[in-house]
Amino acid sequence: MAKARRYFVYEGEFPMYRGGTLLRPTIAYETWGELNDARTNAVLIFTGMSPSAHAASSALDPSPGWWEEIIGPGRPIDTHRYFVICVNSLGSCFGSTGPASIDPRTGELYRLNFPVLSLEDVARGGYELVRHLGIERLKAVVGPSMGGMSALAFELQFPGMSEGLLLMSTGSRSLPFSIALRSLQREMIMRDPNFKGGNYTPDALPLTGMRLARKLGMITYRSAEEWRIRFGRERIATAVGPMNGDSFGPVFEIESYLEHHANKFTGQFDPNCYLYLSRASDLFDVADHGGTVMEGLKRIQARRSMIIGVKTDFLFPIDQQRELAEGLSGRGRQVEFVELSSLQGHDSFLVDMDNYRPLIARFFA
Amino acid sequence: MAKARRYFVYEGEFPMYRGGTLLRPTIAYETWGELNDARTNAVLIFTGMSPSAHAASSALDPSPGWWEEIIGPGRPIDTHRYFVICVNSLGSCFGSTGPASIDPRTGELYRLNFPVLSLEDVARGGYELVRHLGIERLKAVVGPSMGGMSALAFELQFPGMSEGLLLMSTGSRSLPFSIALRSLQREMIMRDPNFKGGNYTPDALPLTGMRLARKLGMITYRSAEEWRIRFGRERIATAVGPMNGDSFGPVFEIESYLEHHANKFTGQFDPNCYLYLSRASDLFDVADHGGTVMEGLKRIQARRSMIIGVKTDFLFPIDQQRELAEGLSGRGRQVEFVELSSLQGHDSFLVDMDNYRPLIARFFA
Repeated sequence: MAKARRYFVYEGEFPMYRGGTLLRPTIAYETWGELNDARTNAVLIFTGMSPSAHAASSALDPSPGWWEEIIGPGRPIDTHRYFVICVNSLGSCFGSTGPASIDPRTGELYRLNFPVLSLEDVARGGYELVRHLGIERLKAVVGPSMGGMSALAFELQFPGMSEGLLLMSTGSRSLPFSIALRSLQREMIMRDPNFKGGNYTPDALPLTGMRLARKLGMITYRSAEEWRIRFGRERIATAVGPMNGDSFGPVFEIESYLEHHANKFTGQFDPNCYLYLSRASDLFDVADHGGTVMEGLKRIQARRSMIIGVKTDFLFPIDQQRELAEGLSGRGRQVEFVELSSLQGHDSFLVDMDNYRPLIARFFA
Repeated sequence: MAKARRYFVYEGEFPMYRGGTLLRPTIAYETWGELNDARTNAVLIFTGMSPSAHAASSALDPSPGWWEEIIGPGRPIDTHRYFVICVNSLGSCFGSTGPASIDPRTGELYRLNFPVLSLEDVARGGYELVRHLGIERLKAVVGPSMGGMSALAFELQFPGMSEGLLLMSTGSRSLPFSIALRSLQREMIMRDPNFKGGNYTPDALPLTGMRLARKLGMITYRSAEEWRIRFGRERIATAVGPMNGDSFGPVFEIESYLEHHANKFTGQFDPNCYLYLSRASDLFDVADHGGTVMEGLKRIQARRSMIIGVKTDFLFPIDQQRELAEGLSGRGRQVEFVELSSLQGHDSFLVDMDNYRPLIARFFA
């Protein structure tokens, strides 16, 4: 299944943004298309919090990727023209080094001994990979959601490295509403008796905490309006609810939907990795790179940017997209700001392909 | 402290809307002002999910109530003019019979053997109390949030009983977004190992689940914009966070705020009562009383209504207020619909007194 996945081992000590180092960390990635001889056609994609580097299918791995309709021959990020790299975030658990990896210095799993993770580190992971591939300059850096903040961290740390910047459903930093939600998700996991201070065992994972956290994620990733239309107050045909003896079992379709999807996710994602990536999203702040958000954004050198935001997004409200567009304009820099009315909230970039395909195609045309 | 609280015992079997009966249930309440000789000046208030009947202070209990600025001599609901009754919802745990009460038929606590609770039952509790007090007709029924749905259930079951209807931050039914949030809150409580299928003991309450549920409540009761202004990305001065050895302790002010307030609430409210009232809010639907919401609302006879909604309310979005106003108009019925821009989201009716005082005063003038 993961035959398309490749690994880059960073030789030496990888310096972490908020202190500490990792010894010989691995960065997992996948690529599509061919690097041209001039090495000028590379596109680097950072992911949201939970996906792997498997953004699209390929001959080596025909299973659909998380952005299948966007990447491929003749698709918006056209692999006939571009060499596309998707990187699994440092700190994640799909091949890259993270809290679920063995620390070569101790021979033990890092778990909560992993150093504080910052999106600046995720960005540096992408940078070191790109340099390792012999690429000096990128056509574009792309990032949705947390990946958008990683892309910003990339631009801030490696100015001039990319010509274009495509951000969607992201922001210059997390606002207290999003921090509150993530903080609560982390607490759900850490309060699961199986969590055991991060020292859970494979046969007794904190699955309840993970499932609760995932459900809260799903509630905030979509929009109230979408659910009103999709589910309304439909009841489960076979509900074992208050009317049938089980006082508090699921009654409404929406409850059954959440249960089904949360169960799919749980078990795939390492709980400690989830905590680290979640906190890294809270900590990121463009203002750390210039005193204020606007000063930080001024330092970004990408010549062409596109910012796509969605009005129903709870986590990164549309005002944050507008702020990015404002901050990335001026000083010879072109910005296109697109405000979508997609129903699918924060997740629109994964679902509302009819709106995203032409926009992304235009950016890469 | 609770010297102002009075109790009405319903003699006989109280029929529950979705089946079963309660034997001799108690309804707790408080009153302010005097019933006039014609018995025509009574106002009945239903509460949101968590408050007691202590809506305002009085000589018997000088501690401030949850709606202190609204009820009292010379206040918007002027107790020089009106006899004000606030009822503790059936199913709650502040004096009225609920899952935390002893079932006289068994001598044991009801716990999860309490029958399915509906807001129609809460409404009937209010009705039986009012009749017991010798009142045939009410000046107005008032309800914020869940209390608004209880007030609607009152109007639907006892048509013609009240002249006025004042609703705020409520709806004709719960939409899937709110159901999803409540379902997740219930699951947090039920998954707490101390919950033990509702048979928790006083020395080992499911406090972790209650605290998580309360935090999620707080996140959805207020607005993202309010928190952005109040907290921004301010950090706790003494944070023991990722930078100080505790990987995932609170770092941001918003995290500390949630922790502080959730701890205040937890322990006051019985977990089983919480589950029943939460589910009752999901189940309520005006359409159960007429086939559709609009048909149900048509049956309501209150001559004068005021509907107050807040644009930042996540739980009962402004469209639901507009729907109520539409459905309660026509056929000789007057409706005033007020759309507020308060920052405090769903909780505005408890906080944004400068906006609510004059509106409520006008309704009662």
